[in-house]
Amino acid sequence: MASKTVFGWSIAIADNKSLQILEPHKHESKSMGLCDILAVNPLVIRVKRFLKKAWDIGVDDPRRMIHGFKVALAMTLISTFYYIKPLYDSFGGNNAVWAVMTVVVVFEYTAGATLYKGLNRIGATLLAGCLAASVCVVAKKTPGHRFEPVIMGVSLFVISAVVTFSRFIPEVKARHDYGCMIFILTYGLVLVSWYDDHDVHPVIQLIIVTNERISTIIFGSCLCIIVSMFVFPVWAGTELHNLISSNINKLANSLESCVSEYFSESDEESKKKLEDYKRVLNSKASEESMSTFARWEPAYGKFSFRHPWKMYVKIGASLRSCAYCIETLVSRMDSKTQVPETIRNHVSTSCLRLSSCSSDVLRELSTTVSSMTQSTQMDSAVKEMEKAIHALRNDVESLPDLMQSHTNDELLKVIPLVTFISLLIEIASRIGNVVKVVEEFAEVAKFKQAKDE
Amino acid sequence: MASKTVFGWSIAIADNKSLQILEPHKHESKSMGLCDILAVNPLVIRVKRFLKKAWDIGVDDPRRMIHGFKVALAMTLISTFYYIKPLYDSFGGNNAVWAVMTVVVVFEYTAGATLYKGLNRIGATLLAGCLAASVCVVAKKTPGHRFEPVIMGVSLFVISAVVTFSRFIPEVKARHDYGCMIFILTYGLVLVSWYDDHDVHPVIQLIIVTNERISTIIFGSCLCIIVSMFVFPVWAGTELHNLISSNINKLANSLESCVSEYFSESDEESKKKLEDYKRVLNSKASEESMSTFARWEPAYGKFSFRHPWKMYVKIGASLRSCAYCIETLVSRMDSKTQVPETIRNHVSTSCLRLSSCSSDVLRELSTTVSSMTQSTQMDSAVKEMEKAIHALRNDVESLPDLMQSHTNDELLKVIPLVTFISLLIEIASRIGNVVKVVEEFAEVAKFKQAKDE
Repeated sequence: MASKTVFGWSIAIADNKSLQILEPHKHESKSMGLCDILAVNPLVIRVKRFLKKAWDIGVDDPRRMIHGFKVALAMTLISTFYYIKPLYDSFGGNNAVWAVMTVVVVFEYTAGATLYKGLNRIGATLLAGCLAASVCVVAKKTPGHRFEPVIMGVSLFVISAVVTFSRFIPEVKARHDYGCMIFILTYGLVLVSWYDDHDVHPVIQLIIVTNERISTIIFGSCLCIIVSMFVFPVWAGTELHNLISSNINKLANSLESCVSEYFSESDEESKKKLEDYKRVLNSKASEESMSTFARWEPAYGKFSFRHPWKMYVKIGASLRSCAYCIETLVSRMDSKTQVPETIRNHVSTSCLRLSSCSSDVLRELSTTVSSMTQSTQMDSAVKEMEKAIHALRNDVESLPDLMQSHTNDELLKVIPLVTFISLLIEIASRIGNVVKVVEEFAEVAKFKQAKDE
Repeated sequence: MASKTVFGWSIAIADNKSLQILEPHKHESKSMGLCDILAVNPLVIRVKRFLKKAWDIGVDDPRRMIHGFKVALAMTLISTFYYIKPLYDSFGGNNAVWAVMTVVVVFEYTAGATLYKGLNRIGATLLAGCLAASVCVVAKKTPGHRFEPVIMGVSLFVISAVVTFSRFIPEVKARHDYGCMIFILTYGLVLVSWYDDHDVHPVIQLIIVTNERISTIIFGSCLCIIVSMFVFPVWAGTELHNLISSNINKLANSLESCVSEYFSESDEESKKKLEDYKRVLNSKASEESMSTFARWEPAYGKFSFRHPWKMYVKIGASLRSCAYCIETLVSRMDSKTQVPETIRNHVSTSCLRLSSCSSDVLRELSTTVSSMTQSTQMDSAVKEMEKAIHALRNDVESLPDLMQSHTNDELLKVIPLVTFISLLIEIASRIGNVVKVVEEFAEVAKFKQAKDE
């Protein structure tokens, strides 16, 4: 590093006493400049690599950077609001913190997730606030206030335990996990805050505490929801929709490039696509969470309010079933060298045809899903695929005729090829299953009829 | 429902005017009792079903109920603490809310997750508190206070945007996602709270606000961590450890029952085990999150502080690779009827042997992982599996001799069987890969040597 060509500003420590800042220059630097020292410092290297990665992530999907700005906008708006004194006083003064906190915890990447959190937060705060207020009033009315702390303590214990446990129930977890947390939180806060001050009439105190918290939380949640929905919105529904339709395409890519590689006709670009199926294997969790959030979103664009988001999860599952099989197919690729050239050539055409027909069906499915229009070509594409399966089966049937002698050795050499073909046919039949699920989806979601061209 | 035998208390509305509470009785009830009306009410049915489900979830894993009680205990402890006036006043009075809030949001099911959230919360609050305090002091010193709101607003905007964006970077997301949120939160809160009161000297005000928040948060987090770690602790590490070792067993079950079903020797119990591999397919997300949390846990039981938790994720991936292949194998099971009985019987013994040898290797792996002891039988089990592969290959080689005529028809009938056997051999080779990963794990985690028996 020390004696390479350096062009730029550098700071050279010449005699350990003075720090010289040199003019831009192009030279063979002999001395160890500060730049060079920094360049080999492991910490600097790590920081640089980290920044590079962050930059790549931002460039890869600029909406992530926009999300950062959206959160910053919401935060600045809410605190500006509280900087303005008259507004501040009218909106519960000391409780400004709740609004700021609401913005930070409620604002999520997609509009659906923000709506889920915001509405859960508002609902749970209202419910828990009312319940806690009622319990406090009842506790207050017990003779001599002796049982007051006991009633409140026991109620807090029971509610915490029951609500925490309920978060393990799948239905509750999917829709109200966050709401449950806020419910316990609000209940605990109202009880503790109320105990704070006994001079004021308890009911008035309660109303003040509950009301301030509720109004600031509603205010913060609404701000988040508005910014999230109207400033460059990222809809969970659209994300899910695009993910599924791109995943269908990815399966088609992998299948096509795997088969063409097996019959050695593939190029560099096709090799890259070979691994595309892996994204389908790993997208289960994001499909499920996005379909949960999408249900909170209003009607927008081409999606109606009651769009069947659950169907995407079902399509995703049928795609993964294809992907499992493609994974096995790809792993069989090494076996191609064992198969004699002549035999491989015999089935090559029909295998390539089946793979291209299957991929056509997948691509047609992807277009159908992404345009939400019933395809006019789907039936013929499926028929083509079935014909291709039939032709391949015929080719396999005529395989034995091709072998000069029926020696065991020759038969054994065919096994890898036969397995490959069986898997290919299995994948085609699983694609048939995807077609059925997409048809069901088209019916439930009332896809448009395609115009005749 | 209306005329069944009822034994118990029931409330019968006799004449729509008076409500009679009847004594316990055993009779053929003719009138539509309230119980009966309730029993057919759809809402009651739904509530009943929900409660039944909740009960089943609790009975299935009682630790979930215990978790509810642990949260309730922490909540009750923290609020009792604040009910006691002298303690309350010494611990930041009004800020009791922070402690309650900390308990609700930090307490998670596993000790690791609680530690992750608690330590992130403490660290982020400290950092953001100090940063916000410094910015406030600098802003205060600007001449004429004119730029004060500008400096604070801009700093809030920039920090919110940068920190929010940084949550998309995988390394940050895995370890400090929650910390990032708390960082923005604290920064915003200190800025807003500080603006609150201009009468007190700003620095003193700052110290009060920051100090109160930090001390209550440390107090709340520590309480959570202590309860989580010392009252019936659920360690993320132990959960992960058990999940992986049970997943290995599940693969063995599925493989064995699939092969025995193919050669029609299976019973009811084995049919149940057939689907066990599905849990392996779906446990990626939980493996990854648990290995993240396990890294926050201290040394306990048999796990040292630097236990290689990441290796479990690697073993999990190699298990999933087997599971993909088993999924394909299971789907080929319907094809067994196409294969002639005589040919099936010819390979039956060696197929069953390979499946039982493979399962033995898997079960040995499971014991190795769960006991963290190097197995003395592993080498011989792997050798047995290799021998079984060899024997099966020999049987397949002698298949052609078995066929009376080498008609195309007969050869075609063998294809499903040949595919099945190829997949079986592929699974065995993938199990070999699992063995390698577990060996690497044994080396990194310094497994004990087994005592000679």
